[in-house]
Amino acid sequence: MNKLKGAAILGQSGGPTSVINASAAGVFLEALKQPNITRVYGAAHGIRGILNEEFYDINQEDVKELQLLKTTPSSMIGSVRYKLKPLEVDDSEYKRLLEVFKKYNIRYFFYNGGNDSMDTCNKVSKFFKDSGYECYCMGVPKTIDNDLWATDHCPGYASAAKYVATSFMELYYDATVYDTPMVAVVEVMGRNAGWLTAASALASYKNAGPDLIYLPEVPFDMEKFIKDAKAVYEKNHGKVLIAVSEGVKTKDGTYVAELGAKNLAKDSFGHSQLGGTANVLANVLKEALGVKVRPIEFSLLQRCAQHLASKIDVEEAFNAGKEAVKAAVSGVTDYMIGFKRHINNGKYECEYVRIPLAEVANAEKKVPAEWIINNGTGLSQEYIDYALPLIQGDEKAPLEDGLPRFAKLKKVLVEKL
Amino acid sequence: MNKLKGAAILGQSGGPTSVINASAAGVFLEALKQPNITRVYGAAHGIRGILNEEFYDINQEDVKELQLLKTTPSSMIGSVRYKLKPLEVDDSEYKRLLEVFKKYNIRYFFYNGGNDSMDTCNKVSKFFKDSGYECYCMGVPKTIDNDLWATDHCPGYASAAKYVATSFMELYYDATVYDTPMVAVVEVMGRNAGWLTAASALASYKNAGPDLIYLPEVPFDMEKFIKDAKAVYEKNHGKVLIAVSEGVKTKDGTYVAELGAKNLAKDSFGHSQLGGTANVLANVLKEALGVKVRPIEFSLLQRCAQHLASKIDVEEAFNAGKEAVKAAVSGVTDYMIGFKRHINNGKYECEYVRIPLAEVANAEKKVPAEWIINNGTGLSQEYIDYALPLIQGDEKAPLEDGLPRFAKLKKVLVEKL
Repeated sequence: MNKLKGAAILGQSGGPTSVINASAAGVFLEALKQPNITRVYGAAHGIRGILNEEFYDINQEDVKELQLLKTTPSSMIGSVRYKLKPLEVDDSEYKRLLEVFKKYNIRYFFYNGGNDSMDTCNKVSKFFKDSGYECYCMGVPKTIDNDLWATDHCPGYASAAKYVATSFMELYYDATVYDTPMVAVVEVMGRNAGWLTAASALASYKNAGPDLIYLPEVPFDMEKFIKDAKAVYEKNHGKVLIAVSEGVKTKDGTYVAELGAKNLAKDSFGHSQLGGTANVLANVLKEALGVKVRPIEFSLLQRCAQHLASKIDVEEAFNAGKEAVKAAVSGVTDYMIGFKRHINNGKYECEYVRIPLAEVANAEKKVPAEWIINNGTGLSQEYIDYALPLIQGDEKAPLEDGLPRFAKLKKVLVEKL
Repeated sequence: MNKLKGAAILGQSGGPTSVINASAAGVFLEALKQPNITRVYGAAHGIRGILNEEFYDINQEDVKELQLLKTTPSSMIGSVRYKLKPLEVDDSEYKRLLEVFKKYNIRYFFYNGGNDSMDTCNKVSKFFKDSGYECYCMGVPKTIDNDLWATDHCPGYASAAKYVATSFMELYYDATVYDTPMVAVVEVMGRNAGWLTAASALASYKNAGPDLIYLPEVPFDMEKFIKDAKAVYEKNHGKVLIAVSEGVKTKDGTYVAELGAKNLAKDSFGHSQLGGTANVLANVLKEALGVKVRPIEFSLLQRCAQHLASKIDVEEAFNAGKEAVKAAVSGVTDYMIGFKRHINNGKYECEYVRIPLAEVANAEKKVPAEWIINNGTGLSQEYIDYALPLIQGDEKAPLEDGLPRFAKLKKVLVEKL
């Protein structure tokens, strides 16, 4: 057991999920119990909050409200999209972080996010180590994209997948209500990995899902797309339900969304801001089929639909936070908590494992090519078997006036030293 | 007690809801119990199914599956958008209906829909009466628009309202996660009445809703809209969440959606097909504020989000169906089942009343002007008090594999005579 006493801080980074607060609850509630952790902080808006010495004093929060964080969507302490400059280019921010950590005697650093965040956590940890500052740095995974390397799956994915699958089932019933043609193109989040779009196949598995599913793992061919849709249109008497990832690209690397609007903004990680894929494809099909085609975007709704959170996901996200704290106080550093799947007597079990940050940073896990079937328009039973255990059970916020009662934090900023 | 023996038929018309199947369950399960009802039919796609002699034999369905209809969204027997021609213009369809009713000895007619459907039910009933054919015709209300005259509220509204309010709360948390500007315009269904858009005020009541709400009841002024949004943008440090009804119109009667795309398709009732209001307004604000503005449409999701159905709504929709059958077999005709609200010791209670079809047909109930406050951008406490009792409790489909288990009907078509 590590004997270093000091404060702990949690930062969150990247797009929010339904369960990122559940991981925060896991970190906070476990950290508050640890005798070696003298103070618990929540960075306001991730790494930027640390740079600006803006963090919340979690010791002042009610435990009951911290527990409600488990079923509160998005990030209560605030997230950020911010990439530190490479150390060799500019070390000023790393020095500033070290200064802040020293000033508040922060010895436990938890960073909750996706691959970019694991990269940040890894770089900071290395800089501290090279500077001779003892600090235990642990990553807590998070992403609806499910694209983190070396972990079976990521917290946030299952709840978003459950939202996508459930909403597709409801859309399917809605779309088939009239005896007239109904063609809809539904756009699902996922820039490079099609995991979330693949979740629409769970609805098809229940005979109430899309006829065609397009993932970014497969180069998008517009001619083939039109042919696929026409074939379904004829077979299904005018009913066509299509799921498409926002990130589908043609063979030459052009985003389908770009075919509509050429000038894409870039976010601060240099990623293209997508959106509009459904619009572009709906227009193409309208022309090709000669009928009204409805573009539908799940938009932000899919990220934070806590009311459809998977119980498994909430529990695993919470436990990932707890396990990170336990590891850090026992002297582990530079690891991310990952999930390993076991099936015992047909029952799904999740083992919490430790994966070196360096292994996770900036690597991407895509949907395996062999799971993509029907000439690039469907998912195999392997995917269904993979995803079904993850979306089991409900754990939504308690109701108050028929509406979710989310956590209310005091968010008292720590006085700057 | 009426002693007429014969078959009963249910037809559904207009856009689906989360609970229109609950009303079907109420009609079917009650009709199956009634000794005077010899056979129970479900018209495939409303009035058109009757004209085509296409109806399902409900007597062949499993009662367990009929009970599951209570928590199955959209319309399992199929709906239709079809308006009979005025009798004085062309009576051929009325004669055809009479022929079909006689052939199958249908003596109980239940029509489930909105104002147009109540009009249809009323006209058919009058024609039968004038033709000397004894048939008991009852309307069962349905509309997420909540715009039916003379009833306190309509089945389908509360569940859609609960979806809108809950989704706005989740969006609010998502939209405030970064410390950067975030402006979103969210479009909600409602062509002429703003009831469903008003439901976003329930989220604001929980301090997690839109800053500005625009209903079709108030003429839309683009200059004022920009001014309103700018003021919030400055006050809230770049955070602006806006709810807007798809049906907002400028003073001269032009739909805001039309400002973007001039040519609107018309549906078969002659209503303009809307959509794109959020897109138009997002573009306007992007220009005015100089930041990215996100248009979000709840689209079809808001109509059939059974997973967020209100328990009150499911029960009332079910009971409306039952009450219609009870009334018909006791000799009542030409009425719609309506809801009357009672508050006893602070507790909401719903009384099922009978409203003459002629009173409901084609009349529209709008959001009262005095409930629209803040210079046309907010809802008063009267609205909150009106809506809150309706969205209480959850009643969603049982889960199977973590996904909703909806009803499975055999849908055996009755052999044509």
